Amino acid sequence: LSSTRDPDSGGRPARAGEFQLIERYMAPLAAPRDGEDGGGDAFGLHNDAAVLPPLAPDERLVVTVDTLIQGRHFLDCPAETVGRKALRVNLSDLAAMGARPLGYLLASAWPQDIEEAWIADFCRGLAADQETFGVTLFGGDTTATSGPMTLSLTAFGKLNGATALDRGSVRPGDDIYVSGTLGDAYLGLRALCGELDGLAPAARDTLVRRYRLPEPRLALGQALLDEGLARSALDVSDGLAADLGHLLEASGVAAEIELAALPLGDAARQALTLLAEPPEVVLGGGDDYELLFAAAPGQRAAIAALAERLGLAITRIGRAGAGSGLVVRDAAGREVFLQHRGWTHF
Amino acid sequence: LSSTRDPDSGGRPARAGEFQLIERYMAPLAAPRDGEDGGGDAFGLHNDAAVLPPLAPDERLVVTVDTLIQGRHFLDCPAETVGRKALRVNLSDLAAMGARPLGYLLASAWPQDIEEAWIADFCRGLAADQETFGVTLFGGDTTATSGPMTLSLTAFGKLNGATALDRGSVRPGDDIYVSGTLGDAYLGLRALCGELDGLAPAARDTLVRRYRLPEPRLALGQALLDEGLARSALDVSDGLAADLGHLLEASGVAAEIELAALPLGDAARQALTLLAEPPEVVLGGGDDYELLFAAAPGQRAAIAALAERLGLAITRIGRAGAGSGLVVRDAAGREVFLQHRGWTHF
Repeated sequence: LSSTRDPDSGGRPARAGEFQLIERYMAPLAAPRDGEDGGGDAFGLHNDAAVLPPLAPDERLVVTVDTLIQGRHFLDCPAETVGRKALRVNLSDLAAMGARPLGYLLASAWPQDIEEAWIADFCRGLAADQETFGVTLFGGDTTATSGPMTLSLTAFGKLNGATALDRGSVRPGDDIYVSGTLGDAYLGLRALCGELDGLAPAARDTLVRRYRLPEPRLALGQALLDEGLARSALDVSDGLAADLGHLLEASGVAAEIELAALPLGDAARQALTLLAEPPEVVLGGGDDYELLFAAAPGQRAAIAALAERLGLAITRIGRAGAGSGLVVRDAAGREVFLQHRGWTHF
Repeated sequence: LSSTRDPDSGGRPARAGEFQLIERYMAPLAAPRDGEDGGGDAFGLHNDAAVLPPLAPDERLVVTVDTLIQGRHFLDCPAETVGRKALRVNLSDLAAMGARPLGYLLASAWPQDIEEAWIADFCRGLAADQETFGVTLFGGDTTATSGPMTLSLTAFGKLNGATALDRGSVRPGDDIYVSGTLGDAYLGLRALCGELDGLAPAARDTLVRRYRLPEPRLALGQALLDEGLARSALDVSDGLAADLGHLLEASGVAAEIELAALPLGDAARQALTLLAEPPEVVLGGGDDYELLFAAAPGQRAAIAALAERLGLAITRIGRAGAGSGLVVRDAAGREVFLQHRGWTHF
């Protein structure tokens, strides 16, 4: 763990007590977990860099980084959920590769007026999620910023072999699936922005929680890879239309999806009714962090069994074909116009 | 490589052409280098995360992250040097562990009004340094920010075994050494801030260049580790007094250093004369990225030979002892008061 000093502050640290804050709140996150040897020192707590634990000969390391900026990627979120969201969106990227999480580095740029209580809550949330996901803090960097809080989290995972789920492997004829429900996080954000004040409290809580604490689909990604059920996956962060576009473009295929098949939860349906908006708006809303994947039609029974085993909805929403581009059809087979289609990548 | 969408922008990307900018300028940085197989895809260019190339069984992976914020960690720097500085300060952390660099992840938060030409220059600089240091871009994340440009770079290196240079291994009686010259970068920053306008242009250029483009001492760190010359090292980023304090505290020892022994370059001496400031001010100035290390007195001849072989000044500046704290002595043996001592960590 390091503290990047502010070099134009005439030799004073960017904020008083920075080293102490790191020592008090961040260092415990890097402590070895029960039953592990190696200790915090091996992970570089007091060094410039961290030495990672070795992998088995057939394992491969997977790394990913995502930045979350206050007011942009998290809005009106309790401190306790902010670090957890930063961790979870990165674990979601590991899930989309079929990897098992190991740990993370955290680069934090804090506003200068941040309160110690905020940092304490932030780190308490991270500690809870470290327990949930079996990961530890490998190291990091803390600095002050004149701008919004900016958190860059690098997550590390491992694969059992050299193969990962890949974006570019969808084949014409493959079924397109998505896990869980769509649009909850997007509607949760709109609730936080005051657009859903008439919504029942329980429904509102469901949506807001989905925005604040996405659920990385790690067990699903690992099973899809290990059991050979899918070749291609990604996580829905930009919205289903955009992300499916990425999958199709990387694979050089087209797809049709059925509007009626999209998995919407009860809370999302209530919110859309209140807003008087059609279901397709959820295709342009991000932050769901559900897994979107393609699988051969021969895998339908195995995927249904997997959904049952994981206790997680997995919905077949369409099919890949030759060509390029995404078509969305309503129940009558008519093409649905997507309002935000312009910015998607196809 | 991913683009973190702005979820509160109503489904539009944070800035137009973001995917295109990534594809045009960042993607080439992730291309495999000559003579390497694996290809960009293995490194996750089109996936959520990157799969790293495997290490040999006895090698260990080392990781580090540092954030650089515009106006704070880089000031008045040409675009071409900004990415290079972000890379080099991280390679310097690898050098301090004795590791060999492999590659990096880059999380960039760009101001919304950034110009494409700036990004092109930024990436051209990174491409040059990738060549110099034999590293490649493994992946990253690009987003927009309402605040200052914020770059978090995660660097990956490898050790030949499980042992690294460590901060906590200085022993009483060890000699304290530093590579290169001290204070150049700090004085370069002061030149950029207009404090050294009377300085000869060549001297000014030397100092400014040291601020903008630090030289990670990779060969030195590797030799210190591989040849068993030192157990303990770190890179001087906060200033020698603060960083030596970290080394002493982690090791539970004290040290005395001699002011007259500090390696100052000609340009730094000219600048200090012009400023009418004493040499000890460089102890509080950061950004040198020289290696500070401790070695047993029996290694003096071997370290002198190493300095000769590397063509790099390595100066013995003092000695560790029992106890705690740092004392700086002038040529007459009197203790020197350090103005910025208060914020250092001992």
